[in-house]
Order: sequence, then structure tokens, then C-alpha cells
Amino acid sequence: MIITVQMVLNRLIEPVGHLEPTVDTLKSGRLNAEVRKVAVTFMATYAVIKQAVESGVDLIITHEPTYYNHKDEVEWLAGDPVYERKRMLIEESGISIFRLHDYVHKYKPDGILVGMLKKLKWEAYANPEKMNLLTIPSDEQHTVRTIVTHLKNKLDIDSVLVAGDPEMPVRRFGLMPGASGGRSHIKCFESKNIDLLIVGETNEWETNEYVRDAMDMGLSKALIITGHQNSEEAGMLTVVEMMREALPDLQVDFIASPLAVKRI
Amino acid sequence: MIITVQMVLNRLIEPVGHLEPTVDTLKSGRLNAEVRKVAVTFMATYAVIKQAVESGVDLIITHEPTYYNHKDEVEWLAGDPVYERKRMLIEESGISIFRLHDYVHKYKPDGILVGMLKKLKWEAYANPEKMNLLTIPSDEQHTVRTIVTHLKNKLDIDSVLVAGDPEMPVRRFGLMPGASGGRSHIKCFESKNIDLLIVGETNEWETNEYVRDAMDMGLSKALIITGHQNSEEAGMLTVVEMMREALPDLQVDFIASPLAVKRI
Repeated sequence: MIITVQMVLNRLIEPVGHLEPTVDTLKSGRLNAEVRKVAVTFMATYAVIKQAVESGVDLIITHEPTYYNHKDEVEWLAGDPVYERKRMLIEESGISIFRLHDYVHKYKPDGILVGMLKKLKWEAYANPEKMNLLTIPSDEQHTVRTIVTHLKNKLDIDSVLVAGDPEMPVRRFGLMPGASGGRSHIKCFESKNIDLLIVGETNEWETNEYVRDAMDMGLSKALIITGHQNSEEAGMLTVVEMMREALPDLQVDFIASPLAVKRI
Repeated sequence: MIITVQMVLNRLIEPVGHLEPTVDTLKSGRLNAEVRKVAVTFMATYAVIKQAVESGVDLIITHEPTYYNHKDEVEWLAGDPVYERKRMLIEESGISIFRLHDYVHKYKPDGILVGMLKKLKWEAYANPEKMNLLTIPSDEQHTVRTIVTHLKNKLDIDSVLVAGDPEMPVRRFGLMPGASGGRSHIKCFESKNIDLLIVGETNEWETNEYVRDAMDMGLSKALIITGHQNSEEAGMLTVVEMMREALPDLQVDFIASPLAVKRI
């Protein structure tokens, strides 16, 4: 049986139903193109696309944008040498690229969150109704610092950013991968009565300052910022598993990336 | 002569003229309140406001918001314990708080940029027409790494984030304090033909990924991210100097803050 891009997309969209509007669109390629090999990745970087093309991948499924902005708008990039070279690589190769961002976050439960809980071995901590709320069992003791150590080990990262007291004991905490914004972070602190929130990325003047103020008021609140890629990349393994199960005739590989920035 | 909040604001607004819309509004206090003592700060944190109140400050001039969002919208924060405690401190003290963000960036040249160039001792590098474009004289040699060292020394910071090759020689570079957004960063690379861009804060999926792709294409581009507060706080010293000169009867102090987050 021939599998097309459209058939793969149908499978990815099916748990949610058609969304409108969404950033999850086909960024390149054709819906009726045949797919034999799929690469799943966090970000369709130039290096990822090049590796995929060279290894005969027909379809890249990427969580984040291809062209440096959430909506993959490209008019403003016309003539830019980085954009033009990337577009050329994509067009000349004929590879299909589909963004899977809104759909995977709307899976029940959120596919990225599930993948991260698995990677962190925190499935047992998660509230079954609201899996981004975690509770540490009463026979375990954790502080912000011991949770930082756990995150660094499991995600293989050198350091994280912390607001609040590292020695603060933690019982209930929130896990919000990605960059969901200051309001959603702050509302999570308030509405869920958590001690600690772990996020991917913030705006400095939002969540960071809220937690700084809370600490200066003597309230027991802390924040850990892991970096956006660190907080979501392993979540895309959920999609790899799902695709392998649903379409066993496809070859589905995961392409991980180094971080874009180094700390110096 | 009695100096009022309105008179101070008139002086701050005068170089630009009245802006509409703007986030630069009076967040608390009264326009006709008397001012004898002013505190200038990067961010009106709980600790800064407390220190200001205790030392008899009548007016805080803050570059960044008071309530964890750019527009200082507060409806969504009603009942939040951190918000309510901060609002209570402000209201009970009667202190006036004015945000000076849009105006100071519209001074010609940008007051924050001027303050940062001074702090960095880079005034001589700046293009007089476009002061965020800097050129290293031909008798000086710099790489991304030597510029990182300079930034760390002058701004007293432990580390920065770097995309691109640290050993890349730098001749022309851009300095964009704050978080002006991926499009403005990327357009600066392209339109100004710079090797290196130094910014305060990014969204990971925007500028960082553009520079990662550029490097993977073999293009000589690099990015240094200092952190938002690191990139702008010293810029507010421009306002301290301006106020002391314009209104010598006022006592004008600068309140610096530690960073909200620590790296662990």
C-alpha cells in the first residue's frame, strides 16, 4: 500500500479533529507525495533538513517553525541569505515538512507532556486528570535543588535558571514545557497552589519577576527554567512511537539537535 | 519652588512629545503630588518599592512594568496574593510610579543605548548616525570570545549565551539591548551587514535558530545574549543624569537590583 503525506497527516490530526486557525500546516512538499521514510524532530533546522534529505527522508514532522517565527511568515525574509539558502535546500530536495505543534499539545493528554514525563520518569507523580500537576509522595523528600539535579541528569543539561530559594522543600509542582507565556505560568501558581513551576522559556519581565517578588514577600514559590528545547525535544518521541504503531510500513526516525546556543 | 509629579513627567516626555498609545503611564500616585526625592530603577520590584518607600522616595521611575506584563494590565491578577500584596504596599505608601520605557527608547539617541555604550566604554565604536551599529577600528582585533570577556567584565555578569563560532573575528556588530524581537534582530543582521549581534533577550525559536542555521551554512554570523536586565539596567543611568541636571532641587537616586534568577 502506498502511504501519502495526506495519510500521515490524517493520522496526526485524527485525535483532535481539524483545527482552524493553526500553525500546523504543510510548509513544503505535496499532500499526494509518497512517504516511505519519516523524520520526527523538535526543530527543522538547516542541519536537520540536510541530514534528512541525505538519508532519503520524504517527510519531516517538526514541532517548531522552519523560518524563525511562530507563523512561518516568509514575506519579510525575502532576499535574506539564510532564508533563501534554507528555502532552496527544501525546494530542490522536494522534501515535505509538516509542523506538528498545536495538534500534539491538544492530544489528551498533551503528547509533548507525556513524552517529557516519561523521559523524566515522573509519570507516577502526575495527577491523572491534569498531568502537568505533579505531587511528590509523602515518603519522598525533595527541594528545588534536588529537582534541579534530577532535571539536569535526565535531560542531560549543564545548568538551569532558578528563581526562589533552592533549599525550599517541594511537595506540589507544575511542569509546563515550552514557552506558554507569563499569564499561563502565573495563573498556574495561583490556581493550582503549587510550590514550584518548571517551564521551558519565559520573558524575563513576566514569570521571573513574579517569583522574585513572591520570594521577597516571604512566600514559598520557586521557578526553574530549563530552556525551551530542553523542555520539549524528548516530548516528540511520543510522535515517533505513535507513528510506528499506526503505520508500521513506514520507517520513522527521530533526529535530535544540539542546542543552538552555548554558555560562555 | 514646589516640584510635582506632572513637572517631572513633562521633563521626561519633552524630548519626544506626547506618545499615544504608550505603556509609559502613571501606575500609581497623583500628578499633582509633590516630589522631593526620586528613585530611578530598571524594574519596580517589590524590594525596590519597599526600599524606596522606606527611604522617603516620592516618585519611582521604572523602565520595566510593575505587574509582570508589558501593558501592566491587572484585571487578570485580581486576588493573586503576590499582586495584591504589591498593590497594597504601593497604595498604602502613596508612592507615585511612572514607567519610562517608550519615551527613553525614542530619545535621540536612545537613552538606554547611550547609557549602555557608556557603561561598556564603546562610545567611540558607535556609528554617530546609528548608534547601535558599532565598528572596531582596524588597529584593534576582536573575536566573539574577546567581546564576551569585555561584556562580562563591564556588566559584571558570570556568563552569556552564544550562537556561532566564539573564535570568529568581529569587525562590525550590532548592540540591541532588551528584547526587541526576532524580526528586528534578523533584519538587523541582514540590512546592516554585521558579523555579530548582541541582544538582551530572545525567543529561542527566532534569533537563536537563525544564527544556528547561518553558522551551519558556513556564513560568518554570531549572536551574544546577555540577559534582558544585564543589557538595559545601566542604561537608566542616562535618566539619573538627565534629571539631576534638569531639576537640581530634586534628590535623584538609582536603585540597582540583583538578577531575578540564578544559574544552578
